[in-house]
Amino acid sequence: MPTPKDVYIAVIGAGGVGKCFLSQLEFLSKRLAANSSSPRLSLVLISRSKKILYSPQYAPLPFDNISTKLADSTQQPLPLTKTIEFLAAAPSKVILVDNTSSQDIADQYPNVLSRGISIVTPNKKAFSGSYQLWQDIFAAAASSGAGVYHESSVGAGLPVISTLKDLVDTGDSVTRIEGVFSGTMSFLFNSFAPTEGSGGKWSAEVAKAKELGYTEPDPRDDLNGLDVARKLTILARLVGLQVESPTSFPVQSLIPKELESVASGDEFLQRLPEFDAQMEETKISAEKEGKVVRFVGSIDVEKNVVKVGLEKFDRSHAIASLKGSDNIISFYTKRYGANPLIVQGAGAGGEVTAMGVTGDLLRVLQRIS
Amino acid sequence: MPTPKDVYIAVIGAGGVGKCFLSQLEFLSKRLAANSSSPRLSLVLISRSKKILYSPQYAPLPFDNISTKLADSTQQPLPLTKTIEFLAAAPSKVILVDNTSSQDIADQYPNVLSRGISIVTPNKKAFSGSYQLWQDIFAAAASSGAGVYHESSVGAGLPVISTLKDLVDTGDSVTRIEGVFSGTMSFLFNSFAPTEGSGGKWSAEVAKAKELGYTEPDPRDDLNGLDVARKLTILARLVGLQVESPTSFPVQSLIPKELESVASGDEFLQRLPEFDAQMEETKISAEKEGKVVRFVGSIDVEKNVVKVGLEKFDRSHAIASLKGSDNIISFYTKRYGANPLIVQGAGAGGEVTAMGVTGDLLRVLQRIS
Repeated sequence: MPTPKDVYIAVIGAGGVGKCFLSQLEFLSKRLAANSSSPRLSLVLISRSKKILYSPQYAPLPFDNISTKLADSTQQPLPLTKTIEFLAAAPSKVILVDNTSSQDIADQYPNVLSRGISIVTPNKKAFSGSYQLWQDIFAAAASSGAGVYHESSVGAGLPVISTLKDLVDTGDSVTRIEGVFSGTMSFLFNSFAPTEGSGGKWSAEVAKAKELGYTEPDPRDDLNGLDVARKLTILARLVGLQVESPTSFPVQSLIPKELESVASGDEFLQRLPEFDAQMEETKISAEKEGKVVRFVGSIDVEKNVVKVGLEKFDRSHAIASLKGSDNIISFYTKRYGANPLIVQGAGAGGEVTAMGVTGDLLRVLQRIS
Repeated sequence: MPTPKDVYIAVIGAGGVGKCFLSQLEFLSKRLAANSSSPRLSLVLISRSKKILYSPQYAPLPFDNISTKLADSTQQPLPLTKTIEFLAAAPSKVILVDNTSSQDIADQYPNVLSRGISIVTPNKKAFSGSYQLWQDIFAAAASSGAGVYHESSVGAGLPVISTLKDLVDTGDSVTRIEGVFSGTMSFLFNSFAPTEGSGGKWSAEVAKAKELGYTEPDPRDDLNGLDVARKLTILARLVGLQVESPTSFPVQSLIPKELESVASGDEFLQRLPEFDAQMEETKISAEKEGKVVRFVGSIDVEKNVVKVGLEKFDRSHAIASLKGSDNIISFYTKRYGANPLIVQGAGAGGEVTAMGVTGDLLRVLQRIS
């Protein structure tokens, strides 16, 4: 019987995803403690902007009220490089959980990995920024043997990245990937252009989505398509395409030119009704063909074409009949033939995003312990 | 940089799935060989009924024409227990790939695992037989640290088992699992009761499915529902229900009582038209409610109810609008809320089944190397 090993966990970020992750980590840690041959998890550091909680001797932090304790902490925040040094000096294997969307932290991944620290994260920035960063991250991981997993960077907890990796690693030819990759866009178009009934005005649907908490504080951060472009960049790279950045292929923005530079999200929402006629026209033109309009991303692997924007779909198409704010991702491959392998479900939200992170943590544990 | 380790692979079964697996193994083995820090795979044994190919000194077998060489082999077949002893004595870690559907081999899994040999397999028998065998298998694996993976035992290469395990292991509450788990049943009902048009006679659809190779040689082996019941048994156990066997819950057989004991599949097909009226009635009764009939399996976790049989679905339901011989599996959980996490696509066929096996092999490699 193998003896249990200590694995140290460091968590950066304690917002929506971070809080859910901490409670899943507590669950997992208790579950593993019940099996004498499983690794023992110790939370040795947790930080958020300007706050940190850690023991210089790597003593495990208890989980009770950890978020409150972090908020109340009077420990002097460590600069990122010092945090990495602290973790690299630990007497056991370390997994860094980055629950932020920070580019600064993402830029440090090659450094973190090359020091033998594994990473799990929903942070899209690391994998959808420059192609150089992508190469540096995976080169560092390959040379040190540390793991880097980012399931939640696309479709939250849905098995998207792991499925695509399995297809590629087992030798299938992925020919096309297509889907709805944004919960916000899904919600907007399922309401604006439903498969049954006529839906509301575009500006009203955007306002409603914002009220319900489905958009970023400034809805333009969803409507510019960049979030979807980042996800497509990640998937395209996994399938072998050398995509330079999320702005190196066509991305349709749904922000009217005239409103790109208005000062606030509120002013944007106030003026958006002036442009309802454009979107209404798009909807009606699709209806005339018996179709509905949806905001999708697609990768044509053979033609090396990645794009993001509005497309029309038959009402019976799986993409058309999506519900609520669900994502859908279809993988067309040589093995799967005419009907794609489809993964569908909630693609945003704290709990399901954290689940992807915790699932990745389990995979790293199996590798390193 | 970690040094590469040798991992020995033994393969039992060289039929439809086995042949596809061998070609994927060759692909994988070359891919790993290209990375100096990856484990080196050596195929040290391959066997099928009455044929075996192995080197007593564990020298790797070359992949070229391996199936032909196996067919032509004059080596004396080893009894199963001798095969296990040979593998247990190997100087490196060993993964046994069981590409059969043999109960005899499944019964040996606890023995194999307790000797530190990991297992990957699409063989449903091991996980859907007696509950005692299930317990023995996972107890043996836990105590030796060997891995046992069986993604392809449900939905072939679709990420079904791994997704369910992630949900459970990260602390989600799975409340209900529902789906179409048989490619044969999917094909039959998508043709017999399509969402558009009226479909053919039941007996004609069964005959057509057999002609196209979508059924077992005797179609009753699909129509009795046992294959679906086995898959439901596996999923129910993974979610924590103590299901004694695939016959310990209600399973609706589509074989008319009068044809249960006719001598051959051919005679069965010849007489099936006598019973078309029954199935036609079922179809019409669903149509009157604006629905279509489908053969599904479901697990109500809270009520501890597992069942397999005909149910009616709205035409717009994802289960109703399935295509070809696709499977669909919906996981309803606390985290995912009203809309389930859905996995859909081909759930049978040599290549996609082998892909699930090869994907599992990768997971075991990450654990043991």
